[in-house]
Amino acid sequence: MDKINQAINNIKPLDERAMSEARTRQENLTKPQGSLGQLESLSIQVAGIKGEARPRIIHKVIFTLAGDHGVTRSGVSAYPSEVTPQMVYNFLRGGAAINVLARQVGARVVVADLGVASVLERHPQLKDKKVGMGTRNMAEGPAMSREEALRSIEAGMELVEQEFTKGMDILGTGDMGIGNTTPSSAIAAAITGADVAKVTGRGTGLSDEGWGRKVKMIEKALDINRPNPKDAMDVLSKVGGFEIGGIAGVILAGARYRIPVVIDGFISGAAALIATSLLPEAKPYLIASHQSAEPGHKRILEHLGLKPLLNLDLRLGEGTGAALGIFLVEASLKILNEMATFAEAGVSEKT
Amino acid sequence: MDKINQAINNIKPLDERAMSEARTRQENLTKPQGSLGQLESLSIQVAGIKGEARPRIIHKVIFTLAGDHGVTRSGVSAYPSEVTPQMVYNFLRGGAAINVLARQVGARVVVADLGVASVLERHPQLKDKKVGMGTRNMAEGPAMSREEALRSIEAGMELVEQEFTKGMDILGTGDMGIGNTTPSSAIAAAITGADVAKVTGRGTGLSDEGWGRKVKMIEKALDINRPNPKDAMDVLSKVGGFEIGGIAGVILAGARYRIPVVIDGFISGAAALIATSLLPEAKPYLIASHQSAEPGHKRILEHLGLKPLLNLDLRLGEGTGAALGIFLVEASLKILNEMATFAEAGVSEKT
Repeated sequence: MDKINQAINNIKPLDERAMSEARTRQENLTKPQGSLGQLESLSIQVAGIKGEARPRIIHKVIFTLAGDHGVTRSGVSAYPSEVTPQMVYNFLRGGAAINVLARQVGARVVVADLGVASVLERHPQLKDKKVGMGTRNMAEGPAMSREEALRSIEAGMELVEQEFTKGMDILGTGDMGIGNTTPSSAIAAAITGADVAKVTGRGTGLSDEGWGRKVKMIEKALDINRPNPKDAMDVLSKVGGFEIGGIAGVILAGARYRIPVVIDGFISGAAALIATSLLPEAKPYLIASHQSAEPGHKRILEHLGLKPLLNLDLRLGEGTGAALGIFLVEASLKILNEMATFAEAGVSEKT
Repeated sequence: MDKINQAINNIKPLDERAMSEARTRQENLTKPQGSLGQLESLSIQVAGIKGEARPRIIHKVIFTLAGDHGVTRSGVSAYPSEVTPQMVYNFLRGGAAINVLARQVGARVVVADLGVASVLERHPQLKDKKVGMGTRNMAEGPAMSREEALRSIEAGMELVEQEFTKGMDILGTGDMGIGNTTPSSAIAAAITGADVAKVTGRGTGLSDEGWGRKVKMIEKALDINRPNPKDAMDVLSKVGGFEIGGIAGVILAGARYRIPVVIDGFISGAAALIATSLLPEAKPYLIASHQSAEPGHKRILEHLGLKPLLNLDLRLGEGTGAALGIFLVEASLKILNEMATFAEAGVSEKT
């Protein structure tokens, strides 16, 4: 618990003075007050996170964490688990969607194995943070032990620590794990109290029948394991996943280092539920990049009190929505830093 | 009418073969089918527009058209009309929001005077397309003559023609004109049949009292002028604006040259209503960048059958939303062009 306790003691509230200065500057830029909507509020939030009135973003990092899920043996996914390692290799070769979008926004992608159910070939760009060879089937018992849950969070925190030394002004979260909408729905149901059917979607493309089976499996997993909604570590260990715990760790470490944390879609949202249940102080550091097509994501964002920047019906994961979100955060800061004020431009103010 | 008739005869339907090839490629990329939502459909639309299965975007242009409005004399705006030329100079110096966002996405901004109510200083970057010294007060009679309405559309088309020779793979629309949400609301009410109060917002920041006055002025303008909703040129001349006609011309010329047209917010939406009423064939060339905070914009997008890419409560205009939209279109094409296929990456397909 050391690393997490350290985070608990080191996550500070946003810097009110930097936010106030950024707000004043936004009000003096040559546009009607508030007319850039969320681009204005984003820039003020990032000023508060970084403790600077005019923050800049140079180094951008997207963490794409992979893990496998024992529950896939209960037929909850349209794709076989072997796709998880195949996609990890695709990330390392630069051929996946996250690689394309990260290149576009100038972010580097950190690919990590948190618990893929096969031994991956070593690769200089692959971070080995394997907690186990995939989780156990949560429809039959706990997905992992409490120690493994803790270890997955710490592993995510370590990834951020290591990258921080190379420069990191903003981070995005991402996931890869065949079957991982199933634990995410279970986490959403356990923590928000929503009906399982309301927070369960079709993942990568289930049929009606497959969807019904998935709902039943999640209900069974919650019934067998009875995770305690007040104890996020209990929820993570019983119905979570290694990459989900890892992402929760990335979020906590981001907040600890005062870095804006752009969360991706449904799986990252479930990780954010875990992270903010452990440490509500991390919440102001979060930026929701998009509203996923997965129905449970809306419920998660409401629970977190976050308004998504994009609504493009994305449901891929990997950090793809986060990459687009990073672009918008950068836009908000360029507005703050580069626009002329009314006085500089000789423009008349509101009558 | 020559230029517009020429456009009528030259706007072709989207290229079905290019769209079909792009769709097939999207289905073979290493992601679940449909999992990139609107990024997938956007790329297919652009393939159809450009008639290429794997189109690329290099040259990006945002057209920011300025004009003044006689109706401001009836107290419908929080800012004085003198801000219109002041902001034109701000655009030319690169200090406005549109300059910042256009730089971020690598677009050039074409600034044009369609009808600012003062003589602007000459500037190498300012296109002089002045149709008149601001419109007349539409609350007292027609905003302009039918000839002026036609001239404003032709002027917008000329701007696109001239820029096309310098390279243009995508265009965005933008506006500047103190008071121009008033004619935009009038156009929206006239063409969609909506109640004036439902499509009228607070523009740059009106009080409750100011909003009530604005609604009354628009109702008065519609009552006095009785624009024929079936005749877009009549609507534009009676309750429109020079920059709104210019943007309608930019849209029509974009469709004629098979260029994706990314429309900005409320004012560009009103211009799109005019353009597509004149030529419904232009509609498939349109991409709605965002949903404005102005309440009438939602009604306009519904009428046009467009789903906005962003919902950031923007209400600035200038083309700021269009710039962000251009980034997303570019993202969609990078996905189409740069991602690995299942076969290339050795990834298993859906079971």
